[in-house]
Amino acid sequence: MPVRLDARADDFETAFRALLSAKREVSEDVDAIVRDIIADVAARGDEALIDYTARFDNQTLTPETLRISPAEIEAAVAAAPQEALEALKLAKARIEAYHVRQKPQDESFTDEAGVTAGWRWTAIESVGLYVPGGTASYPSSVLMNAVPARVAGVPRIVMVVPTPGGVINPLVLAAAHIAGVDEIYRVGGAQAVAALAHGTATIAPVAKIVGPGNAYVAAAKRRVFGLVGIDMIAGPSEVLILADGEANPEWVAADLLAQAEHDTAAQSILITNSEALADAVATAVEGQLLTLPRQDIARKSWDDFGAIILTPSLEAAIPLVDRIAPEHLEIESPQADALAAQVRNAGAIFLGQYTPEAIGDYVGGPNHVLPTARSARFASGLGVLDFLKRTSILRCSVEALRAIGPAAVTLGETEGLQAHARSVSIRLNI
Amino acid sequence: MPVRLDARADDFETAFRALLSAKREVSEDVDAIVRDIIADVAARGDEALIDYTARFDNQTLTPETLRISPAEIEAAVAAAPQEALEALKLAKARIEAYHVRQKPQDESFTDEAGVTAGWRWTAIESVGLYVPGGTASYPSSVLMNAVPARVAGVPRIVMVVPTPGGVINPLVLAAAHIAGVDEIYRVGGAQAVAALAHGTATIAPVAKIVGPGNAYVAAAKRRVFGLVGIDMIAGPSEVLILADGEANPEWVAADLLAQAEHDTAAQSILITNSEALADAVATAVEGQLLTLPRQDIARKSWDDFGAIILTPSLEAAIPLVDRIAPEHLEIESPQADALAAQVRNAGAIFLGQYTPEAIGDYVGGPNHVLPTARSARFASGLGVLDFLKRTSILRCSVEALRAIGPAAVTLGETEGLQAHARSVSIRLNI
Repeated sequence: MPVRLDARADDFETAFRALLSAKREVSEDVDAIVRDIIADVAARGDEALIDYTARFDNQTLTPETLRISPAEIEAAVAAAPQEALEALKLAKARIEAYHVRQKPQDESFTDEAGVTAGWRWTAIESVGLYVPGGTASYPSSVLMNAVPARVAGVPRIVMVVPTPGGVINPLVLAAAHIAGVDEIYRVGGAQAVAALAHGTATIAPVAKIVGPGNAYVAAAKRRVFGLVGIDMIAGPSEVLILADGEANPEWVAADLLAQAEHDTAAQSILITNSEALADAVATAVEGQLLTLPRQDIARKSWDDFGAIILTPSLEAAIPLVDRIAPEHLEIESPQADALAAQVRNAGAIFLGQYTPEAIGDYVGGPNHVLPTARSARFASGLGVLDFLKRTSILRCSVEALRAIGPAAVTLGETEGLQAHARSVSIRLNI
Repeated sequence: MPVRLDARADDFETAFRALLSAKREVSEDVDAIVRDIIADVAARGDEALIDYTARFDNQTLTPETLRISPAEIEAAVAAAPQEALEALKLAKARIEAYHVRQKPQDESFTDEAGVTAGWRWTAIESVGLYVPGGTASYPSSVLMNAVPARVAGVPRIVMVVPTPGGVINPLVLAAAHIAGVDEIYRVGGAQAVAALAHGTATIAPVAKIVGPGNAYVAAAKRRVFGLVGIDMIAGPSEVLILADGEANPEWVAADLLAQAEHDTAAQSILITNSEALADAVATAVEGQLLTLPRQDIARKSWDDFGAIILTPSLEAAIPLVDRIAPEHLEIESPQADALAAQVRNAGAIFLGQYTPEAIGDYVGGPNHVLPTARSARFASGLGVLDFLKRTSILRCSVEALRAIGPAAVTLGETEGLQAHARSVSIRLNI
């Protein structure tokens, strides 16, 4: 059974803190293993990559077969169900239309001192996209990672995906094809991250690595951070549904379960001001669980980490929302807009009863790679900015240097950096 | 002597690769020590913080004296030299004027399917700013970190600064006052990072930690990443000057030394198409070194990591610039603008002979916290965006859900996520 809290109860703060600090993930200590794999791939390149792939993915490769060929990709597209292909194309078009709006503007202005300042955005020169193999190999995630990179103008997008025993989801290749991925290699794990960061004879290194993965992949990304850029470290997914008494309990239950079915470590929380809705949703969840293919996963997530919280009003729930800082926030209430405006911390907000979170996972347009585990307090979802970087630009005329240079000389001297001061004063003859 | 390369030489590629991969920093392995300090502060709070401060900073504190009082700050401001205060105020005003332009726009649009999508930027609720003590305690860095946070609208800005033996640079306190820092604590090292991340009875936790520090601080920031956000891990600083035969060799030398005086691990590189300039700059550096207070540091940096590279033209140097991805790039040439437009990877570009890099360190306006150690390939300098996060927003009308919902159902089923599919189909009676 999920935990049930009442914000009016005396022990609520204690219980809520316990909910906030519940550790949903066992952090496996794989760092030492990962360190050795990375060092080995950095030293032996393709050879090491091929060895690890034989050992972990039970697959014999050569430098020539590391890369998935254009013919294989075409065959996968040809073999994919037409309906799924069409859905992927719709998703790609909508994700693209949303992300195009995220492209930032360059800036240049000249102030009264005669200083011209501004900045310029440029695309990262090459990006590696990690795609998990097996059951967590989602074509939708390929789109969500690759499309913003393409919109940003990244010239080279490389994908790595493990294909244990030679098996790969053809729709993952189709999604890569639709999104415009340039190169695909059939490798995974820490060894694939190492290859992307250090490069091998076959795989040229990239400047940034994005995409979800298991504990080994996450540890490898942490280790290569600095040599290359990385995106966030993804944790288990969560949804918080804020609903009043008018919400449809079956719909709310369906949305809670859509989160719970991801992973036994996923978390689904309902906050409501209606005890009747709370009861009805709890009952509806039990009913819907019975017919769910992934009911074992969803039940464990709901029982271990699910929560129903009663608050005097939905407004009174806002501070709790900000403390939870959910990856996904659904607001099912006629006051959804006004409530959303008061929220500071959430990865994505879904407004009204016709916006189930799953729409955002696939075809809504916004990115489904979002900050998990309370990191929406300080982080954003994936977007075009993650594939760009900003260069600041400054130009002083001689008059401008005369105007602002003396203050720089003062500060350089104050900080004991005489060569800083001199690099200005030498130009001003002071 | 700095290394001297010629792009036309047969062994240039090998020599250039060696320059690129030169390890300038000894990475001390302090992770185990830092792990224990963080665990201790998380467990014992103020008590642990006070113990470590006694041990490392030779200072006896109580929970009441952890915080630097408003009276102490006022006294520091009163004691500060007027000229330095005025320079800091000019710097603050110029940094603010530049960063205000970085504030991003919210977005909301409704497409033909009836889907309303967009995003909203919100400020991070609280930010901790680490300021080093001792000789690397720079008031300019306080401004560069705190002003963008203030511009972003961060409601609570907390500063920590070690004060070994009770000594603090009054201008650091004055800069914090000018920038609008809300709370200042006289603690440093891994223990201060731990206090900011986990909170203590006296120091409420923050959501993100920024600012430079030594190996212990960097390791602590890596460790608390995830619990809180962090900025980049700063490495030693570097400048690359691209100059043609018209450049003033004394000015170029002054700028190379302004970088070299930071740190023995700093790097100063000149790329020129003029052998005469190369020779004149080398001579000028030797001359200027003689009168530099920090000549020991600057000489070691220049001898160990300095480089002068000859290229057939400045255009031919652009691919080398992108591979070096310098933190600071100066272009001293009448063609500076056209050359800058071709550069992909640089943290900041300084155009023309009247824009020494030191102007950007203090009063130019752009941020001086920039990506080091080749990370300009994938990272940007500090800015307002580092203190904001983006929440995506989605709303479907019933018609919109009818239009795009079926594709989401298809993809949910395709990915084996039946509860995802159901959360859409249950609303459509399909």
